[in-house]
Amino acid sequence: MEQQIIDPLQNLNLEQQQQKTTEQKSLSPPPPQSLNEVEKMIGYDFKNKELLKEAFTDASYKTEDGVSYERLEYLGDSVLNHLIAKLHYVLYKSMAPGELTRLRAANVDTEALARAALKYDLHKYLRHRKPLLDVQIQEFMEGILEYPSHSYGMIDPPKVLADILESLIGAIFLDTNSSMDDTWKVVERLLQPLITPETLMQHPVAKFHEACQKSGLKPYANDMWNKTGEIEIYINDEVIGRGCYKLKKIIAVNRAAHDAYKNQFGNKDGGIGA
Amino acid sequence: MEQQIIDPLQNLNLEQQQQKTTEQKSLSPPPPQSLNEVEKMIGYDFKNKELLKEAFTDASYKTEDGVSYERLEYLGDSVLNHLIAKLHYVLYKSMAPGELTRLRAANVDTEALARAALKYDLHKYLRHRKPLLDVQIQEFMEGILEYPSHSYGMIDPPKVLADILESLIGAIFLDTNSSMDDTWKVVERLLQPLITPETLMQHPVAKFHEACQKSGLKPYANDMWNKTGEIEIYINDEVIGRGCYKLKKIIAVNRAAHDAYKNQFGNKDGGIGA
Repeated sequence: MEQQIIDPLQNLNLEQQQQKTTEQKSLSPPPPQSLNEVEKMIGYDFKNKELLKEAFTDASYKTEDGVSYERLEYLGDSVLNHLIAKLHYVLYKSMAPGELTRLRAANVDTEALARAALKYDLHKYLRHRKPLLDVQIQEFMEGILEYPSHSYGMIDPPKVLADILESLIGAIFLDTNSSMDDTWKVVERLLQPLITPETLMQHPVAKFHEACQKSGLKPYANDMWNKTGEIEIYINDEVIGRGCYKLKKIIAVNRAAHDAYKNQFGNKDGGIGA
Repeated sequence: MEQQIIDPLQNLNLEQQQQKTTEQKSLSPPPPQSLNEVEKMIGYDFKNKELLKEAFTDASYKTEDGVSYERLEYLGDSVLNHLIAKLHYVLYKSMAPGELTRLRAANVDTEALARAALKYDLHKYLRHRKPLLDVQIQEFMEGILEYPSHSYGMIDPPKVLADILESLIGAIFLDTNSSMDDTWKVVERLLQPLITPETLMQHPVAKFHEACQKSGLKPYANDMWNKTGEIEIYINDEVIGRGCYKLKKIIAVNRAAHDAYKNQFGNKDGGIGA
């Protein structure tokens, strides 16, 4: 067994360990639904319908003009980050920058955005040729049943779902003639319910680590991820937590820490997934 | 000698290796110059002078109301990132997101912002109790003489200089009633000259690595940073580059790669520092 003191657990080598999911090209992309429905759903009518179309075109779709949502996503990301930064700056007048950063991250990370996109069925309107996407989305939908608000790294959101939301935000921003206020009116609805300081949870590794420090416990990890996709957490030669996820090590680690916390310290504080 | 194949050089363990510079408290802070001068210099008159004052108050100064520029800096960072993202989105209509990201990063990284702050002498107006700051600024001023536009990681900009610029941007944004357009008018001037796709350089490690790959060379590094602050780069048992910087390993590595590139491939392409 390889023993590692988990202080912090993040010391496990997590880089470059995401296994690539193969995405074969399918010949017949799913027929996109009418984008009018998106406009109704999000409560915003585009003046320039081309922007809306661009926002819902994945690079895999290969249009004649080579357009895809990637540039809109880049722009939308900066719009969204600013909108949430400003909201929090105004709402939480005495919050320190570190806390503001953590709160914003939880609201705009891949999982939060993927959840919002799914809630509005935005993926159904995406023009793409990614045959595995439906399976990934299905898995994500099953995953979030266990974690009603945010899993904090315990499930694996398909990045494309978050991308759609960001590209849509970029498109709205341009369509409103770069009006942050008008964009916010739409975005605020899309992101409900926002995570607040009251509902913000600690990431499982930080939470477990902190509890161990308080109790003077020295946990260590048995890293079998390369072989089995599994991480075990030990205290005093006894397994107290296990986590498994073959595609991304960080998720296996988070699950192991969450499991270990639950077993070692109970879950009476309404913690993650409680 | 510890041999390491540098493929990429970034494999050198660069985390947590920045030595903390000790900052003793001085009893008498330098008397701040009048903030009117800042307004004249940047061409913007604050309606709310308190915002301006807040933007120029470091946490070390310990005001009675506990105000410092940190929250304004957080806000200003999101404003600046969005402004540059939008500018590039509009200017470079066919640029891929990866390139947009790289171009933005070069324009808003600590060094770029520190250079702008220094150009307008903004540090002279900062209320702080950091007796070592003047020395650090002096070193930075000497460093940039060698690299007229951007050193791409070869010199060590004092973070506080970049912070002042971001907090100033946050203050202007609030003072203009959250007008991105009005804020941009000031920011655009402050950041001149912006780095463009034509003037954007590769980071030294990437540049060296790429040239080695093209030439089929296999460089490796001798990492003596922990002992002497030095990194040596070898090809076939021969030292071809050296870099030294005791406070931050990444800077020693960048300097070594730059030196190795110069010695191995010449510097005829108008490269960094040419």
